Amino acid sequence: MQYKELDVNSVLDFIIDIPSIKEYFGDASLNVAEIGDGNLNYVYIVRSDDDANKALIVKQAVEYLRCVGEEYALSRERMSFEIRAMKKAYAILPKHIPKIYYENEDMSLVIMEFLGRHEIMRKGLIEKEQYPNFTEHISTYLSFFLFYTSSLYLSSDAKRKLIDEFNANTELCKLSEDFVFTTAYMDDETNDNENIVNNDDAKRLFNDMEFKAKVLELKYKFMTQTDALLHGDLHTGSIMLNKEQTFVIDPEFAFVGPFGFDIGALIANLVNNYIHHSIVTHDAKQQAYLLTTIQEVLKKFERKFLDLWTQHTSSALIADGFLDARYLDIYKKKFILNILRESIGFAGAKMARRVYGVAGVEEIRGIDDMMLRHKAEKMALSIAREFVMHYENIKTIDEVLEMIQSER
Amino acid sequence: MQYKELDVNSVLDFIIDIPSIKEYFGDASLNVAEIGDGNLNYVYIVRSDDDANKALIVKQAVEYLRCVGEEYALSRERMSFEIRAMKKAYAILPKHIPKIYYENEDMSLVIMEFLGRHEIMRKGLIEKEQYPNFTEHISTYLSFFLFYTSSLYLSSDAKRKLIDEFNANTELCKLSEDFVFTTAYMDDETNDNENIVNNDDAKRLFNDMEFKAKVLELKYKFMTQTDALLHGDLHTGSIMLNKEQTFVIDPEFAFVGPFGFDIGALIANLVNNYIHHSIVTHDAKQQAYLLTTIQEVLKKFERKFLDLWTQHTSSALIADGFLDARYLDIYKKKFILNILRESIGFAGAKMARRVYGVAGVEEIRGIDDMMLRHKAEKMALSIAREFVMHYENIKTIDEVLEMIQSER
Repeated sequence: MQYKELDVNSVLDFIIDIPSIKEYFGDASLNVAEIGDGNLNYVYIVRSDDDANKALIVKQAVEYLRCVGEEYALSRERMSFEIRAMKKAYAILPKHIPKIYYENEDMSLVIMEFLGRHEIMRKGLIEKEQYPNFTEHISTYLSFFLFYTSSLYLSSDAKRKLIDEFNANTELCKLSEDFVFTTAYMDDETNDNENIVNNDDAKRLFNDMEFKAKVLELKYKFMTQTDALLHGDLHTGSIMLNKEQTFVIDPEFAFVGPFGFDIGALIANLVNNYIHHSIVTHDAKQQAYLLTTIQEVLKKFERKFLDLWTQHTSSALIADGFLDARYLDIYKKKFILNILRESIGFAGAKMARRVYGVAGVEEIRGIDDMMLRHKAEKMALSIAREFVMHYENIKTIDEVLEMIQSER
Repeated sequence: MQYKELDVNSVLDFIIDIPSIKEYFGDASLNVAEIGDGNLNYVYIVRSDDDANKALIVKQAVEYLRCVGEEYALSRERMSFEIRAMKKAYAILPKHIPKIYYENEDMSLVIMEFLGRHEIMRKGLIEKEQYPNFTEHISTYLSFFLFYTSSLYLSSDAKRKLIDEFNANTELCKLSEDFVFTTAYMDDETNDNENIVNNDDAKRLFNDMEFKAKVLELKYKFMTQTDALLHGDLHTGSIMLNKEQTFVIDPEFAFVGPFGFDIGALIANLVNNYIHHSIVTHDAKQQAYLLTTIQEVLKKFERKFLDLWTQHTSSALIADGFLDARYLDIYKKKFILNILRESIGFAGAKMARRVYGVAGVEEIRGIDDMMLRHKAEKMALSIAREFVMHYENIKTIDEVLEMIQSER
């Protein structure tokens, strides 16, 4: 099949004859609306005219980076990696991944479950929503996904095959290399330059060589450490949830990279939201909720990851009986502490890049009052710096919480 | 072409019609002899009857690990990786790589330059040979090969393509995972078990959990760190040289792995030779020569690697101007120190595995006098332990030399 960029008018023609879609909708006539608010792709919702709750999502990648414009070319093959990553995640943990009804790599298109009763986490959190099951769900997602795609579980052969499947996702990895670790800390046309002109904080950041050298170390880890399959862009905009359910969406950035990158992305975005409620709403309850959420995500991840490791005693890395129980325990504790540390390091880079780089977060860049916005930016940079400069010395999760609270 | 295992009788029939081979030998009649003394493959020398100096090497991989036997299956695709690695290395540094005259991946066979005036370094060193140009040559080889295949030089895209080319060399990577990092430290049928029975040193090693936990950390780096394309088995048996020239051969273990692994392999084998001359020949001059060699390899590698980095100011890792000169310098010094540290860590594992594991080294396992052999083993384990336990704290190359000399 030849690739064709669809629009809100041609989507129906394309999907109408797909058996699984016909089966889902039955004989009902359908309507389509574009709901894309992502940075990269076009997203449509197809609904039954008979039953508004009966709906599917059609997502198609185009040949450019949507949030920058057609001049920023980006090959649509990223959709192939998204489809592969969704399927892998679904196989490991179907509960937290939307069901795929149809996929077509030629068309760079996927049709999946519509999460009608769920909201984007970022929006919910801005509106002071709380999700009692979130930390339980996301810690399961993170621990299962990272453990079962790592050398702690896979055979050497299976691990290399996994690398093979995602190794060619160069362009999206390059976006992270550039936007997370590079251009956000120096003069670049993709930055939010209106806010950078005559901005002492930006100047200070761009000249903070000590900080940037540490960012470079994190970038090197990102580029060369193949711990596990990552979502690659696990911010709160990639999570759809309600009080009962949690889904992880949009894994087009998937690649085999460092354990801490997904955890760090999530923590960074929770902290950004905490900053919003510290500076804008002053809602103490929501601030406390966010801090507890961060703590629980980290604690539960740690426990569940170690539980999985206990269940699987032999792996590509550790032959059964190689270490005695005591030293195996010491080894594992050091290993998991290192994941925590790197997660916080990556969280710092992820926070800092959102301040002046391309694609800021609503919680900070969306603040209309420029004085408050600058205050929030200052606070974000301050926590980010704390994270990036000191992540290698963190010993406990509580220290992370202290780092967040000590910065104003 | 269908694969066919050749022998000393069928080699000639196979090569006789290959144009590049015909061109090389002219009309002369040829003779063949098997010279394979490697662990993995069959190696033949084809000579002109008219001129004994006119000769080529024919190397063919078979479907098993030669040094263990036909029951240890090992797919012959390893030859494809050897051919690819030789070509990459030849493109970067033709001076130190044998010229390829013919290659055939279907036949898992390569025909290359015969190094008639060169000897295997291990043998030469045992016979107290000295090579005045070796450190200059091998430091060039290591620095060029590691730098030009790393993210300090390659684009993100080129680096991922490189990973792609070698990622499937699973079986040989698995051999290293098993033999270098695992089975040599626990009961295993592949070990030199005759020497292990009733051997307190072996018992101590197998129960040294503190040491083994550190070996596990090195194994994890080996499995998940994609710094640069490695030779993968750079011991002194993979180096052919004389006083003027140095060649690196046999890169079938090639894969994209940690910077320190090749350097570590070389250092380990130089130290093993040093041990031999300390315990067996008591030749103080040769001992001093080996220590100087180790020091010069490390110092010259460091200088040349940094020189290459200075020549290439922009890379996948560092955008030009991202750091100022002072911090770039600090970053590079930390980076190269980390390579030194990991090299010594890997050297320790490489030394320890040779003591009781499969495929010992001539310098130690070849000692006929069992008392002396045990003394040499003790010394090797002692230095290896020093390396593995303390590599992360090394600050200078001189410290490495001290670590070697302090163990008896």
